[in-house]
Amino acid sequence: MPLAVVLVSTRNPLNIGAAARAMANFGFTDLRVVNPYDVAFREARSAVGAAPLLASAREYSSVADAVADCSLVVGTTSLGHRGLQHPLRRLEYGAKLLRAATASGQIALMFGSEKFGLTNEELAHCHWLMRISTATADLSMNLGQAVAVCLHELVRDPRVARLKPARLKEAKAGDVEQITLLLLDALGRSGYINETTAASTEEKVRRLVRRLAITDRDAAVLLGMLRQILWKIRGN
Amino acid sequence: MPLAVVLVSTRNPLNIGAAARAMANFGFTDLRVVNPYDVAFREARSAVGAAPLLASAREYSSVADAVADCSLVVGTTSLGHRGLQHPLRRLEYGAKLLRAATASGQIALMFGSEKFGLTNEELAHCHWLMRISTATADLSMNLGQAVAVCLHELVRDPRVARLKPARLKEAKAGDVEQITLLLLDALGRSGYINETTAASTEEKVRRLVRRLAITDRDAAVLLGMLRQILWKIRGN
Repeated sequence: MPLAVVLVSTRNPLNIGAAARAMANFGFTDLRVVNPYDVAFREARSAVGAAPLLASAREYSSVADAVADCSLVVGTTSLGHRGLQHPLRRLEYGAKLLRAATASGQIALMFGSEKFGLTNEELAHCHWLMRISTATADLSMNLGQAVAVCLHELVRDPRVARLKPARLKEAKAGDVEQITLLLLDALGRSGYINETTAASTEEKVRRLVRRLAITDRDAAVLLGMLRQILWKIRGN
Repeated sequence: MPLAVVLVSTRNPLNIGAAARAMANFGFTDLRVVNPYDVAFREARSAVGAAPLLASAREYSSVADAVADCSLVVGTTSLGHRGLQHPLRRLEYGAKLLRAATASGQIALMFGSEKFGLTNEELAHCHWLMRISTATADLSMNLGQAVAVCLHELVRDPRVARLKPARLKEAKAGDVEQITLLLLDALGRSGYINETTAASTEEKVRRLVRRLAITDRDAAVLLGMLRQILWKIRGN
């Protein structure tokens, strides 16, 4: 995806490293840094597995330079719409627009400083803004976590949420019944079953065993366990 | 949502603080910690805005104790299915199952140590596993970022992705035409328009102005700008 993550005036180099790590996790490679507070940010140890990405990050002295080649510039904000000059979109919808826009050119996704977010002057370079919907609007997110959540939303596959995963193979009815019979045998020999209510108990046990949704693999194990228990019970 | 975040054998207290911050961001309150490496984890400065949550975190010496009251225990893994004892679900689908399960009782969402994830013994307490789909399977996620991504997936609103946000009010056609006429006037007086192609140029300019998608608010500003420019042009 031709999407650059642009970190503006980041104070803590660990957050730049964390952003790089999230980018590597989700398959993004284009990191741009504008006026980082710590010039040694490329050594951030938080960039686990993303050292090459951090080494190739481009450094700029202005937002204008950083986004000069981008046809869409989107800013992120946690604190809601400032001044109302920009459309503000929730991440779920904004990510959809971003995915659609990747066909038409380079995109910049911009994150402001940890303390103040993007300034009005920086926001003026954005076409629109995106916010992560949080429980309390006055509580900002950690920068590295915000980058991770945004990038995951970009690469998440909505079809997966509708698909059933491959299920473990379920036990065959014959094995389930065999388990039921061995269990009933063990229960009978252990004095669990009252003679007058035996038929009803048997039915209850049979239904209980079906509710366990035993897998094919586990059925064999359970049969072995029950046989062993019965062997012990019979011996005593 | 009756969902506890259970952090097992976490080495870096900053990650516990970051998890607490993400929980506060997304409206979760029940943090449980099993055998943290650093006993002073409650002082983690990374828990910005989540100090009360961190202070009320419960500490356990075993996974069994930590999840004793939970009717569903879900483990997270980045490295794929180990040993195949558990169904493994992608976050997008797993989160849907978790949301559905909150109606029936307390849920535990478990995260292992930074280096090794959940051990086989810890995994044995889980009903199923969930993984965040990353670009490279061999590159694990930062713990605080993984917690943030999982919790956002739990609270994200899929309907938002389908909704159009409230749009800025678009300019009325009359104003757009007024802008067009003033612009044409300015262009004509500036010698931009060739007499022989004037009709075609006028049409092109008219269409260009429509493509700008001018908002109602901006239309008034643009009209003011053009009037000022024309005033200057006429004066020279």
